[in-house]
Amino acid sequence: MIDTIRWINGSIRIIDQTKLPEKEIYLSIYNIDELIDAVKKLKIRGAPALGITGAYGTVLALAEATKTNVGGLIEKVHTIAKKIIMSRPTAINLNWGVSRILKIIEQNVCLHPEEIMKEALTEATKILEDDIRCCQLMGIKGSDLIDEGCSILTHCNTGGLATGGFGTALGVAVTAHQQKKKIHVYVDETRPVLQGSRLTAWELQKEGIDHTVITDNMAGYLMAQKKIHCVIVGADRIAANGDTANKIGTYALAVLSEKHRIPFYVAAPMSTVDRKTKCGYDIPIEERKPEEITHFQGHRIVPLGSKVYNPAFDVTPASMITAIITENDIYKGPHYNFADFALN
Amino acid sequence: MIDTIRWINGSIRIIDQTKLPEKEIYLSIYNIDELIDAVKKLKIRGAPALGITGAYGTVLALAEATKTNVGGLIEKVHTIAKKIIMSRPTAINLNWGVSRILKIIEQNVCLHPEEIMKEALTEATKILEDDIRCCQLMGIKGSDLIDEGCSILTHCNTGGLATGGFGTALGVAVTAHQQKKKIHVYVDETRPVLQGSRLTAWELQKEGIDHTVITDNMAGYLMAQKKIHCVIVGADRIAANGDTANKIGTYALAVLSEKHRIPFYVAAPMSTVDRKTKCGYDIPIEERKPEEITHFQGHRIVPLGSKVYNPAFDVTPASMITAIITENDIYKGPHYNFADFALN
Repeated sequence: MIDTIRWINGSIRIIDQTKLPEKEIYLSIYNIDELIDAVKKLKIRGAPALGITGAYGTVLALAEATKTNVGGLIEKVHTIAKKIIMSRPTAINLNWGVSRILKIIEQNVCLHPEEIMKEALTEATKILEDDIRCCQLMGIKGSDLIDEGCSILTHCNTGGLATGGFGTALGVAVTAHQQKKKIHVYVDETRPVLQGSRLTAWELQKEGIDHTVITDNMAGYLMAQKKIHCVIVGADRIAANGDTANKIGTYALAVLSEKHRIPFYVAAPMSTVDRKTKCGYDIPIEERKPEEITHFQGHRIVPLGSKVYNPAFDVTPASMITAIITENDIYKGPHYNFADFALN
Repeated sequence: MIDTIRWINGSIRIIDQTKLPEKEIYLSIYNIDELIDAVKKLKIRGAPALGITGAYGTVLALAEATKTNVGGLIEKVHTIAKKIIMSRPTAINLNWGVSRILKIIEQNVCLHPEEIMKEALTEATKILEDDIRCCQLMGIKGSDLIDEGCSILTHCNTGGLATGGFGTALGVAVTAHQQKKKIHVYVDETRPVLQGSRLTAWELQKEGIDHTVITDNMAGYLMAQKKIHCVIVGADRIAANGDTANKIGTYALAVLSEKHRIPFYVAAPMSTVDRKTKCGYDIPIEERKPEEITHFQGHRIVPLGSKVYNPAFDVTPASMITAIITENDIYKGPHYNFADFALN
C-alpha cells in the first residue's frame, strides 16, 4: 500500500510523482493554487487518485471560502471547485470527487462552518477508504482472469500511485501475485511522461513482482512472439456504452490485442463510469503542452520549429474491450450498458 | 542532399547522427575500430547508409591489411570484413556492401596493392552514387502513390541521413514535395533512440516540409481520427517472400494500418532484399543494450534492478504490406516473390 494522498493536519499530503523513481518526496499542499499546480504538473495523477484529490481539494476550497466573509459560502466553494475540475478535463473522477463533497456541503450549509468542515472531511476520507476497498475488491475479482504463468502487458501507471494506495489494473496483478500465482508483467514505458517506466516499474519492484520494461512501440512485436497473454489497463472515463478513455496508446494496444486474439481488460472503479456521457466520441480529450515531447529533462530532442501534437488520452471502443473489471462485478463485452446503473 | 558518408583523403567522413539535432558534427574515421564503434553507437545508421559504410569500411580494411606483411591479403581483409558485418546483424546492406568490395578485391588480387585499392575505392564510390540514384528513382516512382493533400505517417529515419544522401521512404515524401504537392508528414519519435524526432524532423525542416512529431503510441489515435492517409517506412532487410524487418514499432503500425484500411508502403533499394532469407522468421533481430531504455542523456528513467527488453527491429509479414517501392518498380502485395530476381 502506498500513501499516495492523505489529509494531514489541514493539508493534503501527496507523494510527488514527478520525482519518482529517483527521489521519494512528500509534499504538503495548503491551498488551492498549490493543488491545481500539482494536478496540472502530474505531481498527483491517475483517475481514482484524482477523485480523492477532487474531494480533499473541495475540503480545502471550503476552508478557503470560510475564511472570507464576502458572498455566500456555497457560491464561493463552487467557484473554487470549478477551477479544480478544469485542471484536468478527461478524468471524470476529479469532477466526481468534487461533486460528492459539494453535495455534503450543500446538505449541511445551515450548520456552523466548523461542523460543515467536519462533515466534508469525513466524506472525503470515506472516498479515500472506499477507493482502497474498491481497488482491493477489483483485485480479487480481476485476479480470477489471471492464470498461473500469465504474462500481462500494462500501460501507464494504474498502481497504488494512481489511486488511494492499492491500484486498479496493476492491483489485479498485485492480487494475483499475493495469491502466489507466478506472473510476469511487461510495462509499456508510456511516452511522453513515462508513467510506466518511472512509476509502474517502481511499484512492481516494491511488490517483488517479476517485470520487464519495454518502449510502447514494442508491444506488437511481443504479441506476435506470443509473449503476452492478456492486457490490463485502467480508465480515465468510461462512457455509458463502455467506450473507454485512457492514457494515449491504449487504443493501439486494443487494436493489437484484437489482431492477436489476446484478452483486453479494463479495470476501474464504478466512479470512473460517466453515465451522462453516452459514448467515447463525447469524452473531451486533454491536449498537453508540447514540451512533454520536445524536451527531456531540460534537453531539447525535437528541433526548434518542428510542431508536435500531444493528446494525453485516446478512446477505445467498447466492442474491443473483452471485459471491464469493477468493484461490483466483471462486465463482459462486447456490449456494455452502464446507463441504468445507480448514480455514483 | 545530405553528405551522410563520403570518402575523403583516405578516411570515411560521416555526420555524427548521435549529436543531431543539437549539433552538426562531422567525424573522420581512419581505422576499423573507429568505424565499428561508430556503427555500433549509431553515429552512422540506416540500412542503405550501412551498405555504403560496409563498402568504404572494406576499403579501409584493405588499407589496413596491405600495411602488414604477415599472411595472405584476402584472408586478412576477410577477417576484418567479418567484424564489420557482425557490428549490426539485422541490416543486410552492411553484408551486401562488404561483399561487393570483397569480390572486387578477389578479382584483382594479382594487381599491385595500390591498384587493388584504386579498384576497390572506385567500386565503393559507385555504390554510394548508385544509392543516391536509386533513392531518387524510388522517390519518383513512389511519389505516384502520394496524392495532393496527403498526410503521411513515417517511422524512424529513412531520409538522407539513412542513405547516401537522398533517402528512401522519406525520399518519397521529399519528391512529392518537390513536385509541389501539398503534403503533411507525421513523424513517430521512434523510441528508444528517437531517430524520428531527432533526425527525421531535422531533415523535414531543412526541406521545408510541413510536419508534426508524435510519440509512437499516438499513431493509432491519429488513424482513428482519419488524420493519416498512408504509412511509408523503410526496411533493414526484405526476405525473398517480402516479409520485412524494420525499426521496432513498424509491425504495430502495419497492424494499425490494416485495421484502418490505410495503405502501408515499404520503400527500400533492391540491395535490401535478401534472396537467401526465405521469410521474416529467418531474419536475425538485433537486441541492443538496456541503457537505451533505462537512461536518457545520463538520467536514469527506469528504477535500478528493473529488467528491460530492447529489440531494435521487428518483422512485418508481406501480406500486410500494400506495396514495396524499389528503384526497379513498385511491387504490389499481398504476394511478393523476390527469390528469382537477379543477384544484387
